[in-house]
Amino acid sequence: MDELVTQVIRRLFVPLEASGRHVHLTKAQAQSLFGHELTPKRPLSQPGQYLANERVTVIGPKGEFQNVAVLGPEREEAQVEVSMTDARALGLDAPLRLSGNVADSPGATLVSPLGRICLTSGVIVAKRHIHMTPEDAVRFGVRDKQVVRLQTYTKRPLIFGDTVVRVSPAFETYVHLDYDEANACGFRPGDLGRILT
Amino acid sequence: MDELVTQVIRRLFVPLEASGRHVHLTKAQAQSLFGHELTPKRPLSQPGQYLANERVTVIGPKGEFQNVAVLGPEREEAQVEVSMTDARALGLDAPLRLSGNVADSPGATLVSPLGRICLTSGVIVAKRHIHMTPEDAVRFGVRDKQVVRLQTYTKRPLIFGDTVVRVSPAFETYVHLDYDEANACGFRPGDLGRILT
Repeated sequence: MDELVTQVIRRLFVPLEASGRHVHLTKAQAQSLFGHELTPKRPLSQPGQYLANERVTVIGPKGEFQNVAVLGPEREEAQVEVSMTDARALGLDAPLRLSGNVADSPGATLVSPLGRICLTSGVIVAKRHIHMTPEDAVRFGVRDKQVVRLQTYTKRPLIFGDTVVRVSPAFETYVHLDYDEANACGFRPGDLGRILT
Repeated sequence: MDELVTQVIRRLFVPLEASGRHVHLTKAQAQSLFGHELTPKRPLSQPGQYLANERVTVIGPKGEFQNVAVLGPEREEAQVEVSMTDARALGLDAPLRLSGNVADSPGATLVSPLGRICLTSGVIVAKRHIHMTPEDAVRFGVRDKQVVRLQTYTKRPLIFGDTVVRVSPAFETYVHLDYDEANACGFRPGDLGRILT
């Protein structure tokens, strides 16, 4: 019976996740900051993605954050994903973007015990989005890049507009919020959302 | 024409405001922290309320915030209003409450150049709310303590659920969000919301 309930829930709702500030690096950057490629500490919800053992300090014109998570594997281009709260603390006017779209974004300095890198761009506020498997996309009647509303079943319930669905066989189905959004809706691990199209 | 547009907008929408972390004090507490009662620096949107010249450091078990705004006039009971992000940084499990309801909330230490006060309770995360004049309550068809949804016309549009309307002739009509909520919806000064009942 519990298994049936779980299956029904998975067909009606999408699990929510909160992403803290984090950094993506290229292999060359990982090498120069740590002397080696990134090493996995624990897997993330998206298949193949992991939290690295390595961490960096992110420095902006007005402030810095120490001990910031680095996510692996390495990418073709560096990216620093922060919340609007973080961007303000760093003193950066970071644009609201989907991950991977860093054109014309401000840079920051990344520091490790071994080295220092000045990024000329790459700092963005991640646009809220839903990672989704093709099977779930069929089930929920949505397609890649579709913008939906998302109702949260959380302590401070709300309906997020402008939520982009991203469909790929490489994904697991999860909503990704940043900490401003997670706190605004009173998110706690295990909370669910419902897609409104 | 512009005046007419402004009037129509005021009848359809409610202006949004973001409240940063702040402290309310009793007269005795202001006296012991500053040697005098609070002095106004600038008025706030709510009639008679003001940002004080005086500021305090708020200290919790895990962190502190310096230079925190104190709002006047003094109240019957001290209160520290923070965002969930702030509460986490302070290391406090602050409950989600309407202003004035501080029973069973955690305390914090308040420090000024002159003194130090240990509050045994008073730290809350303010529940989002709409201050409203009785005239606007009639116009919008809502009553005191009614819970409504609020659609934001902001950069990251969303619909807040669980938004409490507070009606009083002592109020001006404004939605009060904390910075988690303001950043989650991409609030910028001048942005408007619409009440959904």
